[in-house]
Amino acid sequence: MAKTFYGNFFEDFSVGMVIRHATPRTVTSGDVALYTGLYGSRFAVQSSDAFAHGLGYPHAPVDDLLVFHIVFGKTVPDISLNAVANLGYAGCRFLAPVYPGDSLYAVSEVIGVKENSNGKTGVVYVRSTGYKADGTEVLDYVRWVMVRKRDPDTPPPEPHVPELPAALDADALGNAVPLLDLDGWEPALAGSPFRYEHYEPGERIDHVDGMTIEEAEHQIATRLYQNTAKVHFNQHTEAEGRFGRRLIYGGHIISLARALSFNGLAPAFHVAAINGGRHVSPTFAGDTIYAWSEVIDRGEIPGRRDVGALRLRTIATKDRPCADFPDLDAEGRYDPSIVLDLDYWALLPLDG
Amino acid sequence: MAKTFYGNFFEDFSVGMVIRHATPRTVTSGDVALYTGLYGSRFAVQSSDAFAHGLGYPHAPVDDLLVFHIVFGKTVPDISLNAVANLGYAGCRFLAPVYPGDSLYAVSEVIGVKENSNGKTGVVYVRSTGYKADGTEVLDYVRWVMVRKRDPDTPPPEPHVPELPAALDADALGNAVPLLDLDGWEPALAGSPFRYEHYEPGERIDHVDGMTIEEAEHQIATRLYQNTAKVHFNQHTEAEGRFGRRLIYGGHIISLARALSFNGLAPAFHVAAINGGRHVSPTFAGDTIYAWSEVIDRGEIPGRRDVGALRLRTIATKDRPCADFPDLDAEGRYDPSIVLDLDYWALLPLDG
Amino acid sequence: MAKTFYGNFFEDFSVGMVIRHATPRTVTSGDVALYTGLYGSRFAVQSSDAFAHGLGYPHAPVDDLLVFHIVFGKTVPDISLNAVANLGYAGCRFLAPVYPGDSLYAVSEVIGVKENSNGKTGVVYVRSTGYKADGTEVLDYVRWVMVRKRDPDTPPPEPHVPELPAALDADALGNAVPLLDLDGWEPALAGSPFRYEHYEPGERIDHVDGMTIEEAEHQIATRLYQNTAKVHFNQHTEAEGRFGRRLIYGGHIISLARALSFNGLAPAFHVAAINGGRHVSPTFAGDTIYAWSEVIDRGEIPGRRDVGALRLRTIATKDRPCADFPDLDAEGRYDPSIVLDLDYWALLPLDG
Repeated sequence: MAKTFYGNFFEDFSVGMVIRHATPRTVTSGDVALYTGLYGSRFAVQSSDAFAHGLGYPHAPVDDLLVFHIVFGKTVPDISLNAVANLGYAGCRFLAPVYPGDSLYAVSEVIGVKENSNGKTGVVYVRSTGYKADGTEVLDYVRWVMVRKRDPDTPPPEPHVPELPAALDADALGNAVPLLDLDGWEPALAGSPFRYEHYEPGERIDHVDGMTIEEAEHQIATRLYQNTAKVHFNQHTEAEGRFGRRLIYGGHIISLARALSFNGLAPAFHVAAINGGRHVSPTFAGDTIYAWSEVIDRGEIPGRRDVGALRLRTIATKDRPCADFPDLDAEGRYDPSIVLDLDYWALLPLDG
Repeated sequence: MAKTFYGNFFEDFSVGMVIRHATPRTVTSGDVALYTGLYGSRFAVQSSDAFAHGLGYPHAPVDDLLVFHIVFGKTVPDISLNAVANLGYAGCRFLAPVYPGDSLYAVSEVIGVKENSNGKTGVVYVRSTGYKADGTEVLDYVRWVMVRKRDPDTPPPEPHVPELPAALDADALGNAVPLLDLDGWEPALAGSPFRYEHYEPGERIDHVDGMTIEEAEHQIATRLYQNTAKVHFNQHTEAEGRFGRRLIYGGHIISLARALSFNGLAPAFHVAAINGGRHVSPTFAGDTIYAWSEVIDRGEIPGRRDVGALRLRTIATKDRPCADFPDLDAEGRYDPSIVLDLDYWALLPLDG
Repeated sequence: MAKTFYGNFFEDFSVGMVIRHATPRTVTSGDVALYTGLYGSRFAVQSSDAFAHGLGYPHAPVDDLLVFHIVFGKTVPDISLNAVANLGYAGCRFLAPVYPGDSLYAVSEVIGVKENSNGKTGVVYVRSTGYKADGTEVLDYVRWVMVRKRDPDTPPPEPHVPELPAALDADALGNAVPLLDLDGWEPALAGSPFRYEHYEPGERIDHVDGMTIEEAEHQIATRLYQNTAKVHFNQHTEAEGRFGRRLIYGGHIISLARALSFNGLAPAFHVAAINGGRHVSPTFAGDTIYAWSEVIDRGEIPGRRDVGALRLRTIATKDRPCADFPDLDAEGRYDPSIVLDLDYWALLPLDG
């Protein structure tokens, strides 16, 4: 019996199917250090045990996006090894803080399938959930991917497209943050005099700095997440592919943009939810990533007087500074420099 | 008195000589994270404290090959700084599990010397042993290297060539694995429905994926092992050398091939012994490594009902997929794509 | 109110001003592992908990220069984001051992300002201090940088230039080293038969090996230190800059030279103070760094019978081996290969 696994094809997925993913993974302070080395993130809560402890955490939690990438990575061999395209994700909620030493695993449920009219591919919708070993949910999200059929002659399944929220409500946020004692929030150490109340919907923030990506960096990052998508690692085949080069994992750009966003969004210490994200263009080694953000909305969280939520849209570009906020044009087309359009909720301390 | 050390030459070695190597080294969860980032290994036992604990380990052991590289690295300044060639290794046994926090050191005994007929070089055989600080042996192996003479006029020593085992017996294996409670072996998390009994001698397994190596990656890896061999790090001198480029540490290829082998060999969670290995061709940054394996033999371990041993031959190639299992040709010459021919024992859970 | 921070300009600094820097940072064994991977350092005290414990440390302390880089990194956004040049540092003392798990933060005091005659820039002198969360000082140093004025028409401040020590006295050293039990100093494991008494002022030591730097390496290092200086990371803007390339953080070269210096200076296990350092020329990816050292002075530390201090000058070059000790020429001009001239005190065990 063949031992090699070539990934699932469209026919292999059906609504209601549940997949427990290999490989379970303990997150450690080693992962945290490497994450810092790869992105240079500076949010004080995740950087300092003492700062986090002063707020009421037992010690510094693991960066939310590192948790996301690790859970996401586990789903790749089962869900997207034969994907033609990652079409989107939605409804990503961070449900519990993760600390170094926590062991994680991931489970996906197929919640939708729809064959494309060409008969060669179909769209698969999955809800993936990351758990700690004791069963605590740490995050969940929906993702949909276009997957090749093994055999174009297989009859199409009954189409089923799940309803997806455009954005999570503010009252769904905050589960990954304990009640904070804001006496511990020293603005100088946090990197900003601002708090939740100082940000206004419509406000645009340039994150100024640019970061050039090297092949070794995105490969080390993506392997750290045990993400096995071939396009990130194999120059021998990608040289013959559409771009002639290895594609960078989209999550790498999200983490870079988030790290750059510290300049202007330092108080936004926690990513509480990702409403949706679009990788507008592929990125490659040698690209320099810039970012800017817009405050879309803000909302208090029922029952909490410590933190409030900003809904942010972060745009990342390549090889183009963002002082003039490159965006969609009048016809709704993205500026050609844009590589990422990310819609998420972040939590900030209240001014009281 | 000169403080700089230029390494030992052939004349400096004599049978029975014992060398305690610098630098002792504590292995940490940081090393484990970096190892994951460099190779993307996905074996569940080494990846998850919870998974390992469910089997009877106190927590996740350190990857066997990381232990090997660290012990090997310590021997380089004393044994192979003036080596012309690494000729081979044999009889490598993993003798105790290593956990983050364990401090290791290494000792070598010279077990053979034989001058070459050219009078300029000779072969040195050493048995190197890695220990924990409390004296527990964690691994030992024999290696032989061709080393330059300091002075061609030195008379040759009495030749002594040790007898080396072609392969270790299955009953020498398993010392680094506690008795396992296989109720904790969840196949989905382990990444495979297969166990020991499902693999047959003669079976060939393509590991499918290819991984392109960057200079920064192999340099970071090799420094992590505190391996000081000059050829891996110095482009200024290597530009004038035989290949014009930095050579990649052979152990880097072994670790890459082992990580790739997860696809097809996911149940082979532990490298219990390396019978022998040959670096057939040098590798360089930019090469894409592929691998396939053949089951050579299998054997039960006396007194154990939890794990069985597969003797595997793993072949790694560069810039050539392995779906058709590139190998020796009819004249016994290696396919030109082959860079590694590794013969080792791995342990797998029994089906019961 | 604008959220983006563009850094301080010369007008923003005044003598006596105190700046508490973002971001506090817990140093972990993950940082230590990555530091090893980036430089390959082999000093036994920092490498092995068992070796350090045998000498009287609770366990292995964090490499002194890693502590320096982390503290230095925190000061960059506030002090040198608009710097034209880093002019020098002096009087750097290591005041307490740092262990994995310690949380650090940094504070700077402006101790001097002097506008340049061109009216466009000025020199700012700061004393920066790194602290543990409990207030223990771990290091301090003075640095002076040339910073742009925001507006050339701003009137110049009263000039104030602090007096700086040419070198620290030996009796100011040793605070970061507990009293050692030298029975635990095993020369073979430490990598050298030599001790303090074996080094003579005037002695020159070639460190032999060369190490080529890759972009990914210095970027990962500099981000690990949360150092945000733009010139290290942004090829898109640096392509148009003076060198056409990203500049490597000077501290990266110091750490490389220190790691190379193990060959010849293995007993010099602790950097106790940096008297001064000059980055003579910029370095870029692709450069191969070599180093040599001269013993300038030595001194016993009042009240200590365990360790003595060597004052060392370490010269690093690019693309030039140091067997003939490249140095200043008769006119006092640096050999063009020289990139670093570092003057520091290191501690070594006494012979007894």
